Amino acid sequence: MTELEAFAVELSHEAARTALPFFRGEFAQENKAGPGAFDPVTEADRAAEAAIRRLIAVRYPDHGVIGEEYGEDRPDADHVWVLDPIDGTRAFIAGLPLWTTLIALRHEDAPVIGAIGQPYLDEIFLGGPSGARLLRAGSETPLKTRACPALSEALIATTDPDIFIGPDREAWTRLRASAQLARLGCDAYAYAMVAAGRIDLVAETELKVWDWSALKPIIEAAGGRVTGWSGQAPDGDGRILAVGDAALTDQALSVLNLA
Amino acid sequence: MTELEAFAVELSHEAARTALPFFRGEFAQENKAGPGAFDPVTEADRAAEAAIRRLIAVRYPDHGVIGEEYGEDRPDADHVWVLDPIDGTRAFIAGLPLWTTLIALRHEDAPVIGAIGQPYLDEIFLGGPSGARLLRAGSETPLKTRACPALSEALIATTDPDIFIGPDREAWTRLRASAQLARLGCDAYAYAMVAAGRIDLVAETELKVWDWSALKPIIEAAGGRVTGWSGQAPDGDGRILAVGDAALTDQALSVLNLA
Repeated sequence: MTELEAFAVELSHEAARTALPFFRGEFAQENKAGPGAFDPVTEADRAAEAAIRRLIAVRYPDHGVIGEEYGEDRPDADHVWVLDPIDGTRAFIAGLPLWTTLIALRHEDAPVIGAIGQPYLDEIFLGGPSGARLLRAGSETPLKTRACPALSEALIATTDPDIFIGPDREAWTRLRASAQLARLGCDAYAYAMVAAGRIDLVAETELKVWDWSALKPIIEAAGGRVTGWSGQAPDGDGRILAVGDAALTDQALSVLNLA
Repeated sequence: MTELEAFAVELSHEAARTALPFFRGEFAQENKAGPGAFDPVTEADRAAEAAIRRLIAVRYPDHGVIGEEYGEDRPDADHVWVLDPIDGTRAFIAGLPLWTTLIALRHEDAPVIGAIGQPYLDEIFLGGPSGARLLRAGSETPLKTRACPALSEALIATTDPDIFIGPDREAWTRLRASAQLARLGCDAYAYAMVAAGRIDLVAETELKVWDWSALKPIIEAAGGRVTGWSGQAPDGDGRILAVGDAALTDQALSVLNLA
């Protein structure tokens, strides 16, 4: 494990220590969206991001940080940490242990290290220059995506079909009809299962840079591929396609972009 | 804890010891549905149900058993155990730790004890004559639903909107629009979160007797209510409504049955 990979793990543990005591407990909560909408943020989101930022400021004061809750510091630095302290705040509020802490390190504008941490499960999925592994209860397991050359055999996932807007919703409906089985409701944990060789494909839209940056180094170090819906690197439009078997990328894109 | 409640916990532990080693490992799997559909069953489902049945046959040979995988033995007995060894087989296959083992004891045709077990989380949600509690890592926590008098403030859940057929789909869409927030993909674990006071309402259809029997004693011992969509006891049509606050039952039924 490189020094920066080990630091990503340290950050993930620190976020876990901060956020886990709030889980299924009492916490302050507010709505970031306007009237008629609901986009919750909790005390746990903010405390976890603040804790991560404190460690980065001490250890790597020249690094930049982009976080969902506290914005940008030095976003043009050579190394930039991209943070979602609690991905799946709705799951967190509902008591469901599939929310995660997402930590990415970007270098020269591409994510090179990623960590997906789930504190209640004591799991950290880590990917970077030295490979992809699951850290749990003091032991390490290599992560490897599985072969799935045909979309018709694929187990696919997305968080919520209602997130897809307009033609993207029809694109998801076509994709689901082309696959063997779909699972809903996982947030970033679905991508961890792609890296672990249990889910074959995840397609989502409306993702922010802190939602997807951590996923790419993990899945790619495990043998898969993460692109935008153009087939190129994610380009900021929020559409993400992650596959365990690179043979699925073209098949899925032809279904998603049929219209 | 009564003798029969303690036995339900023992059955849940036995199912966990049997099923957990298959989780995220290798296991045989087949499709119970016909061509063009996919309804998976695994070696883990069958092994767990067989293990539970063996213990019941030794300890309470006069009791009946109804299980998803191995059918009915003495279904007219005074006490009948109703079993779903792995609820959420799709989640199990996808590596997601929200599948559960559901164990209910029916007496005079009504479920009186229920256990929802999640082995990877080391959790058993238990409900019966002596109350509702969560057993985890050797400790017990009482389960209590939360107050939520208004549907507009409710966090609701269902496993997959695509399970709703015809007018039931529109009923779900209306219900979701009436609530604050919806979560998908939880299978029976959503009902455990109702008992724990984290989710306010679950509405589903197409549930078999082994899908819902365990849920009712847990949620009701925790302060909530489980009915069919008629507002009466579940009547075999597969439609289930579970609420943490009994005030939600009538509000939800009026939205579900609007058509």
